[in-house]
Amino acid sequence: MAKTNPGRFFEDYKLGDVIDHAVPRTVAEGERALYHALYPARHALYSSDEFAGACGLEGSPIDDLIAFHVVFGKTVPDISLNAVANLGYAEGRWLKPVYPGDTLRSQSEVIGLKQNSNGKSGVVWVRTRGFNQMDEPVMEYVRWVMVRKGDLDAPAPETVIPELKGVLEVGDLSIPEGLSFEEYDFTLAGEPHRWGDYEVGEKIDHVDGVTVEEAEHMLATRLWQNTAKVHFDATFRPDGQRLIYGGHVISMARALSFNGLANAQMIVGLNGGAHANPCFSGDTIRAWSEVLDKADTDAPGVGAVRLRLVAVKHGAPEFALKGEDGKYLPEVMLDLDYWVLMPK
Amino acid sequence: MAKTNPGRFFEDYKLGDVIDHAVPRTVAEGERALYHALYPARHALYSSDEFAGACGLEGSPIDDLIAFHVVFGKTVPDISLNAVANLGYAEGRWLKPVYPGDTLRSQSEVIGLKQNSNGKSGVVWVRTRGFNQMDEPVMEYVRWVMVRKGDLDAPAPETVIPELKGVLEVGDLSIPEGLSFEEYDFTLAGEPHRWGDYEVGEKIDHVDGVTVEEAEHMLATRLWQNTAKVHFDATFRPDGQRLIYGGHVISMARALSFNGLANAQMIVGLNGGAHANPCFSGDTIRAWSEVLDKADTDAPGVGAVRLRLVAVKHGAPEFALKGEDGKYLPEVMLDLDYWVLMPK
Amino acid sequence: MAKTNPGRFFEDYKLGDVIDHAVPRTVAEGERALYHALYPARHALYSSDEFAGACGLEGSPIDDLIAFHVVFGKTVPDISLNAVANLGYAEGRWLKPVYPGDTLRSQSEVIGLKQNSNGKSGVVWVRTRGFNQMDEPVMEYVRWVMVRKGDLDAPAPETVIPELKGVLEVGDLSIPEGLSFEEYDFTLAGEPHRWGDYEVGEKIDHVDGVTVEEAEHMLATRLWQNTAKVHFDATFRPDGQRLIYGGHVISMARALSFNGLANAQMIVGLNGGAHANPCFSGDTIRAWSEVLDKADTDAPGVGAVRLRLVAVKHGAPEFALKGEDGKYLPEVMLDLDYWVLMPK
Repeated sequence: MAKTNPGRFFEDYKLGDVIDHAVPRTVAEGERALYHALYPARHALYSSDEFAGACGLEGSPIDDLIAFHVVFGKTVPDISLNAVANLGYAEGRWLKPVYPGDTLRSQSEVIGLKQNSNGKSGVVWVRTRGFNQMDEPVMEYVRWVMVRKGDLDAPAPETVIPELKGVLEVGDLSIPEGLSFEEYDFTLAGEPHRWGDYEVGEKIDHVDGVTVEEAEHMLATRLWQNTAKVHFDATFRPDGQRLIYGGHVISMARALSFNGLANAQMIVGLNGGAHANPCFSGDTIRAWSEVLDKADTDAPGVGAVRLRLVAVKHGAPEFALKGEDGKYLPEVMLDLDYWVLMPK
Repeated sequence: MAKTNPGRFFEDYKLGDVIDHAVPRTVAEGERALYHALYPARHALYSSDEFAGACGLEGSPIDDLIAFHVVFGKTVPDISLNAVANLGYAEGRWLKPVYPGDTLRSQSEVIGLKQNSNGKSGVVWVRTRGFNQMDEPVMEYVRWVMVRKGDLDAPAPETVIPELKGVLEVGDLSIPEGLSFEEYDFTLAGEPHRWGDYEVGEKIDHVDGVTVEEAEHMLATRLWQNTAKVHFDATFRPDGQRLIYGGHVISMARALSFNGLANAQMIVGLNGGAHANPCFSGDTIRAWSEVLDKADTDAPGVGAVRLRLVAVKHGAPEFALKGEDGKYLPEVMLDLDYWVLMPK
Repeated sequence: MAKTNPGRFFEDYKLGDVIDHAVPRTVAEGERALYHALYPARHALYSSDEFAGACGLEGSPIDDLIAFHVVFGKTVPDISLNAVANLGYAEGRWLKPVYPGDTLRSQSEVIGLKQNSNGKSGVVWVRTRGFNQMDEPVMEYVRWVMVRKGDLDAPAPETVIPELKGVLEVGDLSIPEGLSFEEYDFTLAGEPHRWGDYEVGEKIDHVDGVTVEEAEHMLATRLWQNTAKVHFDATFRPDGQRLIYGGHVISMARALSFNGLANAQMIVGLNGGAHANPCFSGDTIRAWSEVLDKADTDAPGVGAVRLRLVAVKHGAPEFALKGEDGKYLPEVMLDLDYWVLMPK
């Protein structure tokens, strides 16, 4: 008789399963305004229809991370409701800009399974795709999570670990049709430095910090229709703290990176990412970036840069990431590896 | 010379008075996005233009409770500024969907008056109607409040207690023109259970909880242009607490009810409701529902379900409502009786 | 190699410099909805397309203070990142309504410079203009700030103090094309008092109060893409408090002034303003107004009123502004002198 969703357990996933996630969502000017209220987001392409038009787009798209959050949020009831840990991302690609008025839905395919040796949980790999109302894919990514078993006696599935690219090559990236940075206005973008000015290995301290509040991360997480209890219910964890959605930290760090990377306009690839340590209300988020790679593209005036984006809490970041034991330092909350498009 | 609104006192209401409430409001995509940020709202008909279109509507309407809050908010300066208590609701009907771009205004008629025996206050019944920019009624409801007398020497009016239906019949409900659930997509809606799967008497624990914050309820209450001091001014009550607008609890509980009632799509009737106990910042809201009745409708594939929606604070709800003394338990914040439309 | 913006120091400003500020912004229904959520804003012209249409406008404009905040926010990285104090405003004029879909950008001209006698800082006067996507000016104002010197050995510039009008005359004000209050609906506006009912010297206590929260002022300040660290980073000030953006107090006080000045519809001039004392989370903002002047205009049914708007914290305002020493009382946070349009 239980009509509420108990979520899936490890034994409920079968290799090749295709799960259509619920609740399609029309995104519009309201989501854009809220994104600007929730994060110090200032990348000009996502702020001004005229700026985006001058770059060859039909108007200012919805922020790439809004698309990610909306597509991701829909997967939570089917993929991560009983997840113990969010283990990683790979092969994330943004395939088509999302514009106000578009309706997004999500679909995931189970591409890997491995029961843990303790028999109590297992790792599930899914490739999730977001589609717009024309059934065109707008983004995709692979995520793997550790999920509890509901029935400890359920047999272990055959172990299948998908082969995933550690890093996308520039040829894997999808560049929006018509995109050109030949008429790019560096003054309006807020940053004189262009593709040629960034060196591989260069590190940038983004300087600014934001102290986060309960009300804000809950507004954000609900906006993406992500319903994981741990973000909303202060009685859920023994310590009475609400865990902040990892995507909130991603968006905050990306927005802070404007100061030093204002021309890193469009996110086109996600090579990997780790939510290294949890974030709680009261933490002050700062960010730094490292230039990992650079590549040219065929689009006029458009270069690609591969960046590491690191979010830390408290203190001034000194570009420290891991300790001598190879583990992330306790101040590090996020280590994200992604590709962006930048004017040459 | 006082130009500020002191609100009306009991003796200021006359039977048959029609009050046009101030400040018409155009509602659009921004209000929809904020609703998704403020509440874990996921009913697909109010989330996706395509889903709503497949149900025969011209697009995704503004949430029924947004319409209610906007219409209600306008009445506060004229009806409840000096109210001691919000006593009840009856005969609430949603008459026409509200779409982005519609402009709403409210009007109330005084339909009942009864001075209390203490001579210091009285009960006022009003029937409030909300209209769109074509002067079409979009919703109506009866509300009664206890209001202080400003002049204790003012004579008592003749007592008139309106005859109100305890429960609307299905024939009283207005079903949106063109609505059809024959092409309803249960996968995208997020719930396999349909009208036939719910039994009268069945109770559903909606499982999830949300711990509420000051910033959130104030954002919500202001959004509906509800200006009652007690929600905003921490110096207003002797205990320094801001009372959360009862409508915030209604929307939170309704949104939580998605988990178990995702197909309870459109609210069409409000039979009654009690704000049993106050809600404050820090309270964790949970909800449960009871199926009170079911009825068929003429619209293709559309059934009606009468539900009790109960919001409680803290602990897991055990479906307990009142104590042996017949009074609501202190954990119960809301007891709402309403009709929804559900696919058959 | 530093790619982050260090801000300009006093010696970096030259008389006559024209600075194009970064990050143009398209404003739409989302910003309007958020404004209603953040402030108890109820002026009908900014709430209803129909009401605005009946006043001769093409629709409901974006609130005049949204235009101000967006134009102002863009200037922060170039003008006030190293500012020690925001000293004053003058000659502010709203030149054209901003409608949903308009894209705003800002430009400032350095019109005055004066190094302080201590040699460590100086005062910079700028005239800032906001433009829409047709390059039409939508508003302008003069602001002067005290800015630190980066290089104490930099020579002092020639002192130039601009001649500024202490008060704009009614002839300086720009009245939107087509504006007419001849069909003005006082009932829907929520206030029976019109231009003729207000007397010069009259003071109005706006009665209501709002206790402000961290999450709210950060949402607001980010929405205007104002990135000054002091508003967001609780570790920035030694006392661990985040300073609330002065514009947040302006908008809160203006919205509170609805109660007594609901017909003070359009802000057209800013004569001056002082952020007398800082505002912090937990403060309860109240407001009072004084009628400073009245004038007629050529537009049908449209009068102008010059108002002082005062925001205070805690206690009931007794219209007190300054102490015997001529300094603002510690409870006074804002003293604003502005012109509005009101129906006759």
